[in-house]
Amino acid sequence: MIKSPALLPIILTAAMQTFCSCDNNHPPSEQNQMVRLAKLVIDSTQLESYRAALKEEIEASVRLEPGVLTLYAVAEKDNPTHITILEIYADTNAYKSHIQTAHFIKYKTGTKEMVKSLELIEAAPLIPGMKIK
Amino acid sequence: MIKSPALLPIILTAAMQTFCSCDNNHPPSEQNQMVRLAKLVIDSTQLESYRAALKEEIEASVRLEPGVLTLYAVAEKDNPTHITILEIYADTNAYKSHIQTAHFIKYKTGTKEMVKSLELIEAAPLIPGMKIK
Repeated sequence: MIKSPALLPIILTAAMQTFCSCDNNHPPSEQNQMVRLAKLVIDSTQLESYRAALKEEIEASVRLEPGVLTLYAVAEKDNPTHITILEIYADTNAYKSHIQTAHFIKYKTGTKEMVKSLELIEAAPLIPGMKIK
Repeated sequence: MIKSPALLPIILTAAMQTFCSCDNNHPPSEQNQMVRLAKLVIDSTQLESYRAALKEEIEASVRLEPGVLTLYAVAEKDNPTHITILEIYADTNAYKSHIQTAHFIKYKTGTKEMVKSLELIEAAPLIPGMKIK
C-alpha cells in the first residue's frame, strides 16, 4: 500500500528506470540512434570537386549539429570513386533536421551532377555506442 | 653557428616537428592509420552464433589493444546476414599485432564455417581523425 499519493510519481519513475536498465546494457538513448551506410559512385572527372564538397558538408554537420554523431567517409584505395559513409544520428529527428540545414542542401544540390549512383542502406550496429578512440 | 653540439638533436627535432606541422593539418599519427571495410555474408542458420563471436572479439580487441581504434560493425536491416565492419587501426603494426592475439585467433577459427564470403577493402578516410561523438 502506498500511503502518500505524492510519492506515486517518484515510485513509478524509479520502477520504469529499473525496468529499462534490466532490459539492456546501454543507455536508452543509444537504442534510438539511426545508423546508415551510404554507398556512392562519383564521376571520376569531378572527384576532387565532390570530395571538397563532401568534406565541407561533413565538417559543418559535425560542428553545428549535436545530433550528427559521425559521418565517417572513406574512399576505396583501389577504386577512389567508390565512397562509403558510415552515418550515425542521435535519432530520426536529428536526421530529419540534418537534411533541412543550409549546409546539407548546398551539398546535395551542388553535387547532384557528380554522383553517378547512391545506395542508402539502413543498418543496425552490433554494439550500440561503439566509439572511435 | 651552433656552438654546443649537445643542442644539435634538440634543434633537429624541433625543425622536423615544424616541417611536419606545415605539411598537413593533422597530427602525423593520424596519417599512419590503417582503415578498412570488411564485408561479410554469414550463413543464416549460424547468424546468432556468429554475432556473439564477433561481439566478444570486438569488445576484447577494443578493450585490450590500444592500437585498435574501432571495429564498428553493422548489419543491414533488410539483409541481417550482410555485415560491414569499419576497421581503424593506429598503424599497420597495430593491425599485425591484432591478428596474432588469442581473442582474434579464437574468433577467426571459431567462425570459419559460419562465414560464406569475406571481402576486405583497403580504404582512405576523407577526414583523418574523424570521431564518433
